Amino acid sequence: MKIAVLGASGLVGRAMLSQLEQCCWVDELPLLLTSNRSAGTKIDFNNQELVCHAVNEDSFDDIDIALFSAGGDVSKKYAPIAVNAGAVVIDNSSAFRMDSTVPLVIPEINPTASKGIIANPNCSTIQIAMALMPLHKEFGLLEAHITTMQSVSGAGLAAQQELENKSVTELDIIPKIGAPLSDGSFTEEDKVVNELRKIMSLPELGVTCLATRVPVWNGHSAAIRAVFANEVDREKAVKALAMFPGVGVAKSEHDFKTATEVTSKGEVAVGRLRLDSTNKNALLMWVVADNLLKGAALNAVQIAGQIVESGS
Amino acid sequence: MKIAVLGASGLVGRAMLSQLEQCCWVDELPLLLTSNRSAGTKIDFNNQELVCHAVNEDSFDDIDIALFSAGGDVSKKYAPIAVNAGAVVIDNSSAFRMDSTVPLVIPEINPTASKGIIANPNCSTIQIAMALMPLHKEFGLLEAHITTMQSVSGAGLAAQQELENKSVTELDIIPKIGAPLSDGSFTEEDKVVNELRKIMSLPELGVTCLATRVPVWNGHSAAIRAVFANEVDREKAVKALAMFPGVGVAKSEHDFKTATEVTSKGEVAVGRLRLDSTNKNALLMWVVADNLLKGAALNAVQIAGQIVESGS
Repeated sequence: MKIAVLGASGLVGRAMLSQLEQCCWVDELPLLLTSNRSAGTKIDFNNQELVCHAVNEDSFDDIDIALFSAGGDVSKKYAPIAVNAGAVVIDNSSAFRMDSTVPLVIPEINPTASKGIIANPNCSTIQIAMALMPLHKEFGLLEAHITTMQSVSGAGLAAQQELENKSVTELDIIPKIGAPLSDGSFTEEDKVVNELRKIMSLPELGVTCLATRVPVWNGHSAAIRAVFANEVDREKAVKALAMFPGVGVAKSEHDFKTATEVTSKGEVAVGRLRLDSTNKNALLMWVVADNLLKGAALNAVQIAGQIVESGS
Repeated sequence: MKIAVLGASGLVGRAMLSQLEQCCWVDELPLLLTSNRSAGTKIDFNNQELVCHAVNEDSFDDIDIALFSAGGDVSKKYAPIAVNAGAVVIDNSSAFRMDSTVPLVIPEINPTASKGIIANPNCSTIQIAMALMPLHKEFGLLEAHITTMQSVSGAGLAAQQELENKSVTELDIIPKIGAPLSDGSFTEEDKVVNELRKIMSLPELGVTCLATRVPVWNGHSAAIRAVFANEVDREKAVKALAMFPGVGVAKSEHDFKTATEVTSKGEVAVGRLRLDSTNKNALLMWVVADNLLKGAALNAVQIAGQIVESGS
C-alpha cells in the first residue's frame, strides 16, 4: 500500500503520520505532500527522516490511499485529481462532507468500502456521534442539544502559538467558530448539526449547537442533553456506551475525564452521565476526545484501514 | 449608615468595598472584618488606608448593614449575632439561600425591604436569572437547560494563583464545581437549579445544569436553551432584554460579549440570541457577566442600596 499525506506538516497531518506508523498494513514509506511554502520540511517516520514535497498534479500517480488535511480549497482542487489517478481520497476538510455522493464516515458507526472520495467528519461531530450512537440504538434519539468547548489545536499551530503568548487575564471563551450563516449560526455549529444527521442516518434529528473556542491546548469537550423516543435507564445507557468500540464511560454520575486527560488517547470518553430530572426520556452527559486523533487523524486512518481490509 | 464587610480581604470582599466607594449613601468609613489570620491586612477605601479587624461577637454592635462574604460556616455563626445586634445582613454565602424565611434577592427581579438576613444568590444563578426573567415575562418560561463555564475568580485568590502557575498544556475544563449530591449533580449545579426557581418564583421550573470550571481569569459564561409556553419572536426577545435594567443584548444573532469583555462592568450581556430550529417555543443564548460584580459584590451592594432607600 502506498499512502500519501497531503498537509503533512500541519497538526493533523503529523498526527496522521503518527497513526500510520502504528499500522501493520503500511508497508511502504508514505509520501509527504504540502504546499510550496512548507515543502522541504523534514518529519520523522519510524525513525526515518522524510522530506515534504510540494503537491502537484502528478503527485498521486502511484498512490493507493491519499489522506488530505490541507483545507477545503486544496481538497477541492486535488481530490478529483487523486481519484482520477486511482487513489482513494480520505478528506479531512469540510469540502465534500455534505455531498450526497460522498460517504461521511466514522468506522464504528457507518463503515464503508467505498472508493473515490470519503469524507472524514468534523472533529466535534465525531466525538458527539460516538457518544450518541450507542444511546440511539438503545432508546431512539429524537433531539440533541449541544454546547461544545473546542481547544485551540482545532484551529491549528498558529492558534496554539497565540494561546502560548496570552497573559492569564487574556484567556477567554469565544462562542464563534467559523463563518456566520444566515440562520444565525456559525459554520462550525452547522457542521455539527448536519454532519450528525448524515452520519447517524437521521435526517430529521432535532439538533442545536453552540460551539465555543476555549483556552485549552488540545482536546474538545461537549456538554450534551439528549432526548429519546423511549424512557431512559441509566444502567442500560452505561452498558450501551461501555460496549461500543472506541467509547469509554464513567460508571458514576459524578465521574468524568477531561480534554487534557484524553489527549494522545484514541478514546471518546463519556462522563457526568445523568438522568434529566425534567424529562424521563432525556440524559445529560459530558463527552471529551482528542480532536487531533479520534476527531481527525485516527478516524481518517481507521477509514483507510477499513479500505485496505475490504480490498484484501 | 455604618457598614461592615466581613471577609473584606477576599476577592468578593474587596469588590464589595470598591462598589461601596461609589455609593452616595455610604457616609461613614466601613468596618473591615476578617478571620484572625487576615486581621491587619490594609485596604484602601477612597484613598484612605483601612485596617482589617478580626471578627468577634461584638463586631456588629454599631452596624446598620453587614455584607458577609467569608464562607457558609462563618455566615452561620455570625449572621444571627449581627441580626441580634440590629444589623441587616446581606450574605453572599449559600448558608441561608434556600431557607424559606430568608429572601434570595436580585434587586431588578425581586426587590426586598426585608430586615434580618437577606441572601445574595450564587454568581451563575444571578446572570442566568437576569437573562431569563425578561424573557419569562414575555413568553412564559417552562424549561431552562444550562451549561456554565465559570472562571477561576469564582473559586477565589488561591485558584487564580493556581491558574497563573499552569503551563499552557495544563489548561483544562473541569465539569465539577462543589460537592457531589445523591441525584448525580454537584452543589454548584443544584444551586443554579433551585435558586433560579426561588428567585423567579417558579417552583416547578424545569431546569438542568452542567457547571464547569474553565481556565478564564474572571467572568462567567453560560450557554442556555430556554423553552417557553408561547411561541417566541426574536425581535420581541431582544426588546424585552434591552429594556430590562442591568441587561445588555447584542442585536445580531452572531454578536456577543465575552467574559473578559464584561470584566469590571456591571452589565449582564446576552449574545448569540437565536431561535431554536427544533422548537418554535425555544431560544438559544450566551450570557456573560463579571461574577465578582453582578454575580456577587455589585448585587449585594444593590440590595444594601434598596434597604437604605426603603428605610429613608
